[in-house]
Amino acid sequence: MGRKGYFITLEGGEGSGKTTVIGRLAAYMQNRSLPYLITREPGGIDIAEKIRSIILDPLHTAMDARTEALLYAASRSQHLAERVEPALEQGLIVICDRFVDSSLVYQGYARGLGMDRVKAINDFATGGRTPDLTFYLDIEPEAGLARIAANGEREFNRLDRESLAFHHKVREGYRLIAEANAQRIVTVDAGRPLHVVEKELVDTLERKLLKDF
Amino acid sequence: MGRKGYFITLEGGEGSGKTTVIGRLAAYMQNRSLPYLITREPGGIDIAEKIRSIILDPLHTAMDARTEALLYAASRSQHLAERVEPALEQGLIVICDRFVDSSLVYQGYARGLGMDRVKAINDFATGGRTPDLTFYLDIEPEAGLARIAANGEREFNRLDRESLAFHHKVREGYRLIAEANAQRIVTVDAGRPLHVVEKELVDTLERKLLKDF
Repeated sequence: MGRKGYFITLEGGEGSGKTTVIGRLAAYMQNRSLPYLITREPGGIDIAEKIRSIILDPLHTAMDARTEALLYAASRSQHLAERVEPALEQGLIVICDRFVDSSLVYQGYARGLGMDRVKAINDFATGGRTPDLTFYLDIEPEAGLARIAANGEREFNRLDRESLAFHHKVREGYRLIAEANAQRIVTVDAGRPLHVVEKELVDTLERKLLKDF
Repeated sequence: MGRKGYFITLEGGEGSGKTTVIGRLAAYMQNRSLPYLITREPGGIDIAEKIRSIILDPLHTAMDARTEALLYAASRSQHLAERVEPALEQGLIVICDRFVDSSLVYQGYARGLGMDRVKAINDFATGGRTPDLTFYLDIEPEAGLARIAANGEREFNRLDRESLAFHHKVREGYRLIAEANAQRIVTVDAGRPLHVVEKELVDTLERKLLKDF
């Protein structure tokens, strides 16, 4: 084809169904014989995994919020350099589960470091690489957490246990970003049954790929 | 006293004599019974040490230059939060062997990531904390490297082995920064015998402390 790949990211709060939905997008691309790669940070990239393990080490209670944000950005730049950029270079459709928007929302907005400041370090980390398309799975925090509780497949994690007020702040942050980036971010009502959500995503993806890819 | 501490950083290329000179500053403050702390990143701070060990791991040949710069910034923010800020809060004179200027010069200028971009992530890392006084030990790269070679006390490291052109670029970067921050940075001709350099530093420090501290 000669053209470069297509970079898609998925964003959303806890229990928004990102993981399930990504499986459905993969099946779609498989059926269409489209070349794709599904990934998430740190994604088995050695250096990125080591950075992530410093962030997640429960002994590191003294970790400064800025240190944490810089480490997320460092893990991101390495995963991007070693996995995402080479795949895009090969012309693949890359789907990444969470990207810069997550840091802007969780660290910048919900934890109060400031979206602009977190954006500055992420602009550095990504060297300006922006997704071609982002799906934001929007769900009421109460409904998302109920979905997680009903789902025996994975345990509650630290973020799940954060106060409900925090999850509402996350949603607020995502909505601000989605509004400010309407060209790139497609907001999907993820409170509906997952098969409905999946169909909407696949339809949107098909339309966008026909147009852009 | 009630007042806050005083933050001094030392900067300079390889073989500029920073380590020796810091010992002399310590002796001065000891004699004057001034409360001081000498440190350098990662300085035994657990999280900062772990971050540094990722940077220095010889197996990490695939490390992206941006990842490296972000990791230095992350190590810096943790060392600052856990060691420097509490010491300044207690009213100590803190002397730090290398700080933000080193990243601007080595990564931003000499390695070509861009001083402004490296400054952006370091502004985030430091939360705006700037040294009250910086000594830049200026030396001809040839003379600095000769000093290292003559000095059996430590081995040549990776940076020492970089090409001479790189060391000249480092010096150029330091001079640009010193010129742009003449209020904060005192340039000291470090090519002279160390006892002369040390005397000039101590005299300058004494004058500055009398004025500012």
